[in-house]
Amino acid sequence: MHRLARFNALALGLSLALSAHAADKATTIPAKAVTAAEQLRDRAVNDQTAYEVVESLTTEVGPRVAGSANDQRARDWAVAKFKSLGFDKVYTETVTYPLWERRSEHGAIVAPFPQPLAVTALGYSAGTPSGGLTAEVVAFNDLDGLKNADPSTIKGKIVYVSTHMTQQKDGHDYGMGSATRTRGPVIAAEKGAAAFLLRSAGTDAHSRTPHTGVTGFRDAKQAIPAAALSLPDADQLERIVAMGKPVTLKLDLDVGFNGTYTGANVIGEITGAKHPEQVVAIGGHLDSWDLGTGAIDDGAGVAIAMGAAKLIKDMPQRPDRTIRVIAFANEEMGLWGGRAYAEQHAKDVGKHQLGTESDFGAGKIWRMTASVKPEARGAIDQIAKVIAPLGVAYDATKPGGGGSDLSQMHGKGMAALSLTQDGTDYFDYHHNANDTLDKINRGDLAQNVAVYAVFSYMAAMANGDFGSAPGAFSNDGAHD
Amino acid sequence: MHRLARFNALALGLSLALSAHAADKATTIPAKAVTAAEQLRDRAVNDQTAYEVVESLTTEVGPRVAGSANDQRARDWAVAKFKSLGFDKVYTETVTYPLWERRSEHGAIVAPFPQPLAVTALGYSAGTPSGGLTAEVVAFNDLDGLKNADPSTIKGKIVYVSTHMTQQKDGHDYGMGSATRTRGPVIAAEKGAAAFLLRSAGTDAHSRTPHTGVTGFRDAKQAIPAAALSLPDADQLERIVAMGKPVTLKLDLDVGFNGTYTGANVIGEITGAKHPEQVVAIGGHLDSWDLGTGAIDDGAGVAIAMGAAKLIKDMPQRPDRTIRVIAFANEEMGLWGGRAYAEQHAKDVGKHQLGTESDFGAGKIWRMTASVKPEARGAIDQIAKVIAPLGVAYDATKPGGGGSDLSQMHGKGMAALSLTQDGTDYFDYHHNANDTLDKINRGDLAQNVAVYAVFSYMAAMANGDFGSAPGAFSNDGAHD
Repeated sequence: MHRLARFNALALGLSLALSAHAADKATTIPAKAVTAAEQLRDRAVNDQTAYEVVESLTTEVGPRVAGSANDQRARDWAVAKFKSLGFDKVYTETVTYPLWERRSEHGAIVAPFPQPLAVTALGYSAGTPSGGLTAEVVAFNDLDGLKNADPSTIKGKIVYVSTHMTQQKDGHDYGMGSATRTRGPVIAAEKGAAAFLLRSAGTDAHSRTPHTGVTGFRDAKQAIPAAALSLPDADQLERIVAMGKPVTLKLDLDVGFNGTYTGANVIGEITGAKHPEQVVAIGGHLDSWDLGTGAIDDGAGVAIAMGAAKLIKDMPQRPDRTIRVIAFANEEMGLWGGRAYAEQHAKDVGKHQLGTESDFGAGKIWRMTASVKPEARGAIDQIAKVIAPLGVAYDATKPGGGGSDLSQMHGKGMAALSLTQDGTDYFDYHHNANDTLDKINRGDLAQNVAVYAVFSYMAAMANGDFGSAPGAFSNDGAHD
Repeated sequence: MHRLARFNALALGLSLALSAHAADKATTIPAKAVTAAEQLRDRAVNDQTAYEVVESLTTEVGPRVAGSANDQRARDWAVAKFKSLGFDKVYTETVTYPLWERRSEHGAIVAPFPQPLAVTALGYSAGTPSGGLTAEVVAFNDLDGLKNADPSTIKGKIVYVSTHMTQQKDGHDYGMGSATRTRGPVIAAEKGAAAFLLRSAGTDAHSRTPHTGVTGFRDAKQAIPAAALSLPDADQLERIVAMGKPVTLKLDLDVGFNGTYTGANVIGEITGAKHPEQVVAIGGHLDSWDLGTGAIDDGAGVAIAMGAAKLIKDMPQRPDRTIRVIAFANEEMGLWGGRAYAEQHAKDVGKHQLGTESDFGAGKIWRMTASVKPEARGAIDQIAKVIAPLGVAYDATKPGGGGSDLSQMHGKGMAALSLTQDGTDYFDYHHNANDTLDKINRGDLAQNVAVYAVFSYMAAMANGDFGSAPGAFSNDGAHD
């Protein structure tokens, strides 16, 4: 017997044994806790705490790109806000990452029709030489076009990729949009391009607000200048390219890597009464891109989690387990906060009762999915019943991923939900200057708070666990 | 008898005498021309010429602020376009005006919550000192607040005025919006302000695109730095001001007057077969602000007029009178092209059969009003009947003003229409970066072309005139 096969057989036997054992011990939520959760839900939909939190963060801190002066101000804000909301415990955990800075950025068509372009550099882009970089454009309809291109047609040119996204409730076009943004620059660099430019990974067809976002570059040696055009500017460039004459662009990007920076995840807890060491983990990411004020990405997520925990704190008694709200550092440039948390808490996976992060805007939650052990499906059904009146459908056929940063903890075995928001207009504002407070609807935000408060409280009050353990759920595909 | 009263009595007698005389000679449009106009209308609604014209102008020239390198390119484009469309006569008439330049612009909140602001300098603004101007804000809800303020509360501060506009079909809120933008800076300067800032005169509440536009400054001595915030940025500033602590802003505007510039109105004509010296005058303005590509303001106007004249040119025979299309220079900074035209053609007022300019976007025309002699009302009724199927109502109770630049010629006595467009979303894009081709609907643009083609042709074919004469219509209030 091959060694690996024997290990698998052993693992299977262990799994079957665990299942048989656990079937006797189905996780359930006591009736009294269900009733309390229903009351919590009904209070939440009228509570303004989360809106006040995101208003405060976006107004008093504003943009807070990782490593900037406002990164420190955002952490100070989060510590103070947790305390003023009455959290029992507030602390930080350091997160170290490469510092990347945007100082200025300009783009223009040089020939045949000189005019400025609305352009923004992508995260981890290299800067252009001082005075700018001027080169001919070679255009591709999509990432496959670039992948299949002969390097000789690309060398020394500005690669342009025009992947088009359209609005969807689940935002699935972002799959190809983000792939173009992350992988496109790397492929272009490998083929000798002078620079990379894409049609923004966004859906705001009529707005001159280019969408930034991180590339796949990981250090300065690998990086070339990489930027995004607003959609109307992309249309303009595509019209001109379609005329068939050579098109020359100039990019002048003063951006780049600048050493390393140590920030922090900021954590606030409502301490559990019976099992304080066991935690329900919720949160959002504290950093934002620098172009907007990070209202939907992800002030909303931080506010939803803070608001939900605050409502639980206001109940007559503390829940059995701890509610942990994590405001993650530097999600935007590669889940740095989420990865640091997962490393620092790898040994505590089993103490994470259940978790999920909000990071898809402030639209209403319409679907819940879960990655939990089979014996906890009944408890998930109980949660589903309490949030059903909020318009949330439970789809038992799909896994739950835990959201952006907490996907890393789910990858290590934390039981996780996905609470899917309506993202129809999310990619209108995502990563661009228009991500501001006015995009958040108070009622929609409160619906999110209600869902988070209900599931967090019910999970914290459950008799039994949801299956978190090192290596659990490693094949459910929901934590990439 | 008082001298003035005697003059009025004389004028009244003269007017009555003229009316009695003219009643014998009512202006009418021959039935054959009416039929031809109906056919022209039906061709126009399916014609793509105007769309192709505005696509060409906004793509191949793009932004074309008066006095810029693209101003010359726009004039070259217009001459070439008139010729390629087959106009009989193409020429230019010089227009000289102060040159104002925008080189760079930045704004930020310095205290209490440091963050950048989306800001744009206003036309004829002064620049700030190199390195920027930092001062405390004094905020007013509207222009009256500023007017009534004690200068001691303003001296050395940045005046902020938060006039709010909302969307309307006729865009009437722009009255107070543009008054705030033009008069506000002058009043602030007179009261000793360091700078002037306004909530943009726009209606795009969710867009970080500040709206530029001219101030009332007329020279560098009078000017102080003056700029506009986008509406979300205005909301942000207003939220912070409402907290009651001092708010400090920094403005860094590298802009200003830079001598004089001589551009030109560009004119194309379809020469009349019987009375070539008599002209129907239509047009738009060729210049745009520099932030967008000037699609709705006013590439659309130029395109509508060119497209309408082209359709008339394509008829089997030239009309009796000349169709003159004027692409005006520098409307944006104070009707410079329109005023130059009116001065240069002051002696020819009587040769202007009827005129109007399109300068309110590309929305459908929904109303026609006219300033014509009473004896020409029947001809206007005839025009109204032909355009009624296009959804245009004729309101005989209101005067016609001739549009922006041609208001100057109307002020000198030219009979004029107003063809009012649906401007519901016009002030979402007016004077900001979002004024791009994608805002133009082909069908709506073609409806405009149909109306312009019909009225121009019918006026050109009329038996008789519409009352143009030096000093006519001087009291109708429609040409300010």
